[in-house]
Amino acid sequence: MRDGLQIEQPIPLRAKLELLDAIAATGVREVEVTSFVSPTKVPALADAAELAAELWRYPDLEFSALVASPGGAARAVAAGLTSIEYVVCASDSFSSANVGRPTAEAVAAIPDIAGIAHDAGGTAEVIIATAWDCPFDGPTPPARVTEIAASAHTLGVDRLSIADTIGTTTPARVTDLIAAVRPIIGEMALGAHFHNTRGAGLACAYTAVSCGVTRLDASAGGLGGCPFAPGATGNIATEDLVYLLGDCGIDTGIDLQAAIAAAGVASSVVGHPLPSALLAAGDRKRD
Amino acid sequence: MRDGLQIEQPIPLRAKLELLDAIAATGVREVEVTSFVSPTKVPALADAAELAAELWRYPDLEFSALVASPGGAARAVAAGLTSIEYVVCASDSFSSANVGRPTAEAVAAIPDIAGIAHDAGGTAEVIIATAWDCPFDGPTPPARVTEIAASAHTLGVDRLSIADTIGTTTPARVTDLIAAVRPIIGEMALGAHFHNTRGAGLACAYTAVSCGVTRLDASAGGLGGCPFAPGATGNIATEDLVYLLGDCGIDTGIDLQAAIAAAGVASSVVGHPLPSALLAAGDRKRD
Repeated sequence: MRDGLQIEQPIPLRAKLELLDAIAATGVREVEVTSFVSPTKVPALADAAELAAELWRYPDLEFSALVASPGGAARAVAAGLTSIEYVVCASDSFSSANVGRPTAEAVAAIPDIAGIAHDAGGTAEVIIATAWDCPFDGPTPPARVTEIAASAHTLGVDRLSIADTIGTTTPARVTDLIAAVRPIIGEMALGAHFHNTRGAGLACAYTAVSCGVTRLDASAGGLGGCPFAPGATGNIATEDLVYLLGDCGIDTGIDLQAAIAAAGVASSVVGHPLPSALLAAGDRKRD
Repeated sequence: MRDGLQIEQPIPLRAKLELLDAIAATGVREVEVTSFVSPTKVPALADAAELAAELWRYPDLEFSALVASPGGAARAVAAGLTSIEYVVCASDSFSSANVGRPTAEAVAAIPDIAGIAHDAGGTAEVIIATAWDCPFDGPTPPARVTEIAASAHTLGVDRLSIADTIGTTTPARVTDLIAAVRPIIGEMALGAHFHNTRGAGLACAYTAVSCGVTRLDASAGGLGGCPFAPGATGNIATEDLVYLLGDCGIDTGIDLQAAIAAAGVASSVVGHPLPSALLAAGDRKRD
């Protein structure tokens, strides 16, 4: 919901709930539902508190919210969302462009944000953005990522995620970065976030799973692409990921037909086609 | 060219040469350029002999032609195309629907077709279609594939390719089938053919390379999808494959910028957008 809707034209709260209804029916357990950031910068998610107030409707789902500062974390917790995801950009250039401060300052805010989440009885995740590549600086040195990972581990964060923010990485670099990060963070849960911008998102996701990652971000229908550039797809599509993993014998606990239906709802609420492969092609014929 | 154009509305010969010019500029070494099949069934390739007569323009490219019968092989050879690709469908239902005869009868024609190619100083490849799944029968038993592979090996064929005709397979089944086929065919060259219909084409291609496959089919721009169903993409896009493999440190010898340019030409000559990711997103920023 968060990465999927943030660059769309704002849609009404009731449309978001319609999409959440469809997502809840798939069997997915966790949804990053919104962000508490500047409503000027991300008008599509300006209704974060109003949406949070409706989440009692979904008792079987765990919801998280993305934040970019301690202030955002405080607002999320006040709205009842205590599973906090905090973005730290591994590239200084991207960090400065995105949140107006270099990586080291973003890392310095981790204890405050983790404290706010923990004081509310919640959890904190650090998402390392531009973990492989930066649109300004090119490839991100892996040491930039492992340093943030080490800080997150030391500073009491509960989960880590590595994000291919601009959709440029490929399987070999996924394998390499996971191998570098894993020993640093001990038993901490590790997730991964891929975009399909250059067609390799699903290949990277499968590779990450092969490397032991058990938490993957995806969006209904592949929401999150730029609606003005049809080929510039966004997040990997939940239903495409569920198909691929299921066909490989990996049970996600998500119902594929319900996930395809949710992709249809996603396309309907944003009012344009989505890049989902399964929405177009459907499941294969089974035995 | 063959799988990319066969379901498009017919385009003029000069447009095909424009596309070939762009493909030749990429550094690719082999092009499956057309098929010698029924012009009624595949009107887009009815100019196969006329196109073959123009291929002297590309001295650095090796060209092959797909056939479905000894008669087609004879026509290809007469037109000067002596690298013959012969399709055998592993599923009886698909074989009957596609070429009007069951798998065993298609296998029985292999010696004739290989003989026609060899007598002309050329080579013969067997492509096993519906190697993983059939749209009518569901999953193809791997033994159906290994039996055809054994026949092809015994009957003097030069190369084998396994094809995911309907775009349903995924990495784990790719690994399994290659592991089953490889010991049967000795040192025979093994290729693979994937469609991106369910988003997993590139993941499968990378997996195949990881399993030792060195010959992969792809089309400029991802040509080969149904033009009336935007999401139902066709072949994996050459430029997306080149990007992924190159980023993984595997040099294909193909120039990525030229491949993206060829995708643009492909879109131009067929007159509609193509599913290529790189055509939309471009290369990543390098070091």
